[in-house]
Amino acid sequence: MTWFRNLIKLSTLKNSRQLDPKFTATSPLTLIASLSQFSTGTDASPCAGLGPTKADEKPRVVVLGSGWAGCRLMKGIDTKLYDVVCVSPRNHMVFTPLLASTCVGTLEFRSVAEPIGRIQPAISREPGSYFFLANCTGLDPHNHVVQCQTVTNGADTLDPWKFNISYDKLIIASGAEASTFGIKGVKEHAIFLREVHHAQEIRRKLLLNLMLSDVPGITEEEKSRLLHCVVVGGGPTGVEFSGELSDFIIRDVHQRYAHVKDYINVTLIEANEILSSFDDRLRRYATKQLTKSGVRLVRGIVKDVQPQKIILTDGTDVPYGLLVWSTGVGPSPFVSSLELPKAPGGRLGVDEWLRLPSVQDVFSIGDCSGFLESTGKPTLPALAQVAERQGKYVANLLNRIGKSGGGRANSAKEMELGEPFVYKHLGSMATVGRYKALVDLRQSKEAKGLALAGFVSWFIWRSAYLTRVISWRNRFYVAINWATTFVFGRDISRI
Amino acid sequence: MTWFRNLIKLSTLKNSRQLDPKFTATSPLTLIASLSQFSTGTDASPCAGLGPTKADEKPRVVVLGSGWAGCRLMKGIDTKLYDVVCVSPRNHMVFTPLLASTCVGTLEFRSVAEPIGRIQPAISREPGSYFFLANCTGLDPHNHVVQCQTVTNGADTLDPWKFNISYDKLIIASGAEASTFGIKGVKEHAIFLREVHHAQEIRRKLLLNLMLSDVPGITEEEKSRLLHCVVVGGGPTGVEFSGELSDFIIRDVHQRYAHVKDYINVTLIEANEILSSFDDRLRRYATKQLTKSGVRLVRGIVKDVQPQKIILTDGTDVPYGLLVWSTGVGPSPFVSSLELPKAPGGRLGVDEWLRLPSVQDVFSIGDCSGFLESTGKPTLPALAQVAERQGKYVANLLNRIGKSGGGRANSAKEMELGEPFVYKHLGSMATVGRYKALVDLRQSKEAKGLALAGFVSWFIWRSAYLTRVISWRNRFYVAINWATTFVFGRDISRI
Repeated sequence: MTWFRNLIKLSTLKNSRQLDPKFTATSPLTLIASLSQFSTGTDASPCAGLGPTKADEKPRVVVLGSGWAGCRLMKGIDTKLYDVVCVSPRNHMVFTPLLASTCVGTLEFRSVAEPIGRIQPAISREPGSYFFLANCTGLDPHNHVVQCQTVTNGADTLDPWKFNISYDKLIIASGAEASTFGIKGVKEHAIFLREVHHAQEIRRKLLLNLMLSDVPGITEEEKSRLLHCVVVGGGPTGVEFSGELSDFIIRDVHQRYAHVKDYINVTLIEANEILSSFDDRLRRYATKQLTKSGVRLVRGIVKDVQPQKIILTDGTDVPYGLLVWSTGVGPSPFVSSLELPKAPGGRLGVDEWLRLPSVQDVFSIGDCSGFLESTGKPTLPALAQVAERQGKYVANLLNRIGKSGGGRANSAKEMELGEPFVYKHLGSMATVGRYKALVDLRQSKEAKGLALAGFVSWFIWRSAYLTRVISWRNRFYVAINWATTFVFGRDISRI
Repeated sequence: MTWFRNLIKLSTLKNSRQLDPKFTATSPLTLIASLSQFSTGTDASPCAGLGPTKADEKPRVVVLGSGWAGCRLMKGIDTKLYDVVCVSPRNHMVFTPLLASTCVGTLEFRSVAEPIGRIQPAISREPGSYFFLANCTGLDPHNHVVQCQTVTNGADTLDPWKFNISYDKLIIASGAEASTFGIKGVKEHAIFLREVHHAQEIRRKLLLNLMLSDVPGITEEEKSRLLHCVVVGGGPTGVEFSGELSDFIIRDVHQRYAHVKDYINVTLIEANEILSSFDDRLRRYATKQLTKSGVRLVRGIVKDVQPQKIILTDGTDVPYGLLVWSTGVGPSPFVSSLELPKAPGGRLGVDEWLRLPSVQDVFSIGDCSGFLESTGKPTLPALAQVAERQGKYVANLLNRIGKSGGGRANSAKEMELGEPFVYKHLGSMATVGRYKALVDLRQSKEAKGLALAGFVSWFIWRSAYLTRVISWRNRFYVAINWATTFVFGRDISRI
């Protein structure tokens, strides 16, 4: 029973905040103490972390975020040249274009989530590469250090813990936040559709409302309210979610919630036109298809969101049971807090090589960044496609820099960076439900090119996604999910 | 835009608690008002619900609970003879023997959850059959009425709502509760393993601890604590979970959490012997296998549970990061609150036909019931097998009663019920990890019969479960999950 006695010894040292010897002496992870500009808040202990890399170690690339941009970058980076450290509040990437399908059970949640360790295996294996479940709370570009705090989601496992990481190269890919346009009540009562937990919440609430509306004594009005699903925002996410929802109603609710099937309705509210980035003909097609499957399209602007109804600017009250908000994104508080030059719209301003020009060795990609006005380039749309292309570009750029010996902090100042980043739009896709989709392969709204709508597009849409979901495991699960939904219908267990 | 104007009208009637006309006049759902013994608490409105069935309607069977017993009964009941109303806080059955496998991702959560509408489709289609997401809060056996309250899980969708249901036949199958033996802190800090949300919580916490323990600056002691998984209770659930956990560690943690793999440990604490219902030889085999895969078996009794450590009766402190509690079950507060004759152990007392003999038309099956002492029969173990057999028995009994015209309330008093319920144990199975399982096909501990252990047993164990998971959809998903776990390893996305 020696092992058990050893185990018990540990308890005498409970919760001690002594520093792990590994982090102070024997390893590349050295203590960064007394960086006076770092306020550590209420935590009085010195801030531990990963210190500057030494000559016998690989240079360290720190990636903030695990979305399309950050993950594509990590996938592309040469781990023979660099150690990779990822800091993100979630340990997986969300395959956002398929997220709407998980809300009603067409796909399962895990089929659209890809663990970062599967995208870049070095993170779980290499001694100098790490994934930290944490938020970045501050940046000190002059000392090449980021400050972080662990994310514990209220678990009593461990108190939030602060630490610092020195970087040789930093990539800020922390994304954007859903915009509420300052409308009161949106954050409290509406559900966004950006993370897996949002989709889980939507699915649980939808099933809850379906069941509650069947309880004896509920009034007709209350039933109609509970089963009124309102989607605000007519971009691809809002349209795809509305389409999925109407599919779910037509196919599954009619069969499995026969008592209340006549009370369920979907309304899509958009201030302008739906799918404004698509071809006119495709947009008309989408409008026709959505209307045909029972989605009510309303042009309106939301003024106020209350627990059970929203109020439009024209004074109309719209009662709802489920409210999904997908009106686009704006800068996150972290990005806003950084005192660095910004691009139009409050994004971090980057030059043609996606660098932050005012500091050394910092890049920014994805929804959190935009070209500085001085570059003369337009702000790119907040699309997975843009983020992915930028991640790939910076990965290649860093690999080139690393090969030429510029991997260390402050060592690539004079280096020739090669071709700047140029974005070429490959086209847009959106599904509108009932095995119909839109595919717009034009490079811009004004350009000429192929624009398709219908079943063939839907087939292209599915195939395109099947080949883009990153791992074979998830490709397999997406195909299996689609097949079982087709054969057995969607799963309605509320778990 | 007529539809939208109609929609808006609803909002003027917001939250009104007027009674739905459907429930007062045109349908079998009539108002049960002023049943003076029903206190409706803070809710001042009269209690709506399903009134007594009329002559032109089918008799109504009300089932409380959606576990093995209730679901097997609903599956077996003849819906040409009866309307079925199920009242349960969850809309699915949990395939409990496979629940331990979902905690580490060997199986997915949805593969072990079967929606009630798939078990008994009449519930979602027939006009007189319902599923209500609610708890039963009271029983008035003399008036043949149960009182219920909706379960809203804190959602702001609708306030909890009370209603009554009249029954012709009532089946109490509401199950038991995990026992804590009055030990302080168990409910607050330990996780049970009885529902899908428990398994989800375990999986999230395990992955959280794996990631937190990798954060710089965490002490060695804290790391060992975070990654110490303690299981209390050496019954089949505790043993299977420990086995799954050690499989996960050997196969997945070593590959994907290489930095912290040497800190993770599993300890199984049991006051007596593990798997006490199994054959001695099988028990020794299980002990050997578990020890070989790194599970530490400790004989001890827990005295106190604190947020980060448990204290045993001998004074030992055991620090933990994850604590799973599976020490058996006891009566639920609802069952304890019923003023009806009880069986030993506080269960609802039933006669040989599983009826509550003091009242008319009430049966009780599964973990919440036990034979009255007067029957001279022993209390049956709280096993899925017992519950399932009892559900099947009562379904057949009710079908016979219904066919003979005794379906209505108070109409089967003098009826001959036929053969009483006799339980024949078919054997026990448990897996111990690493493709090894125990199969004990003896009818009791003293009886002779087949007792196997090893890979063949494991294969029998898997096949037996694959043929017992109720729907083809879930059989398919369980097989697919097992295959992908084998090929790709377990999924570690923390969603």
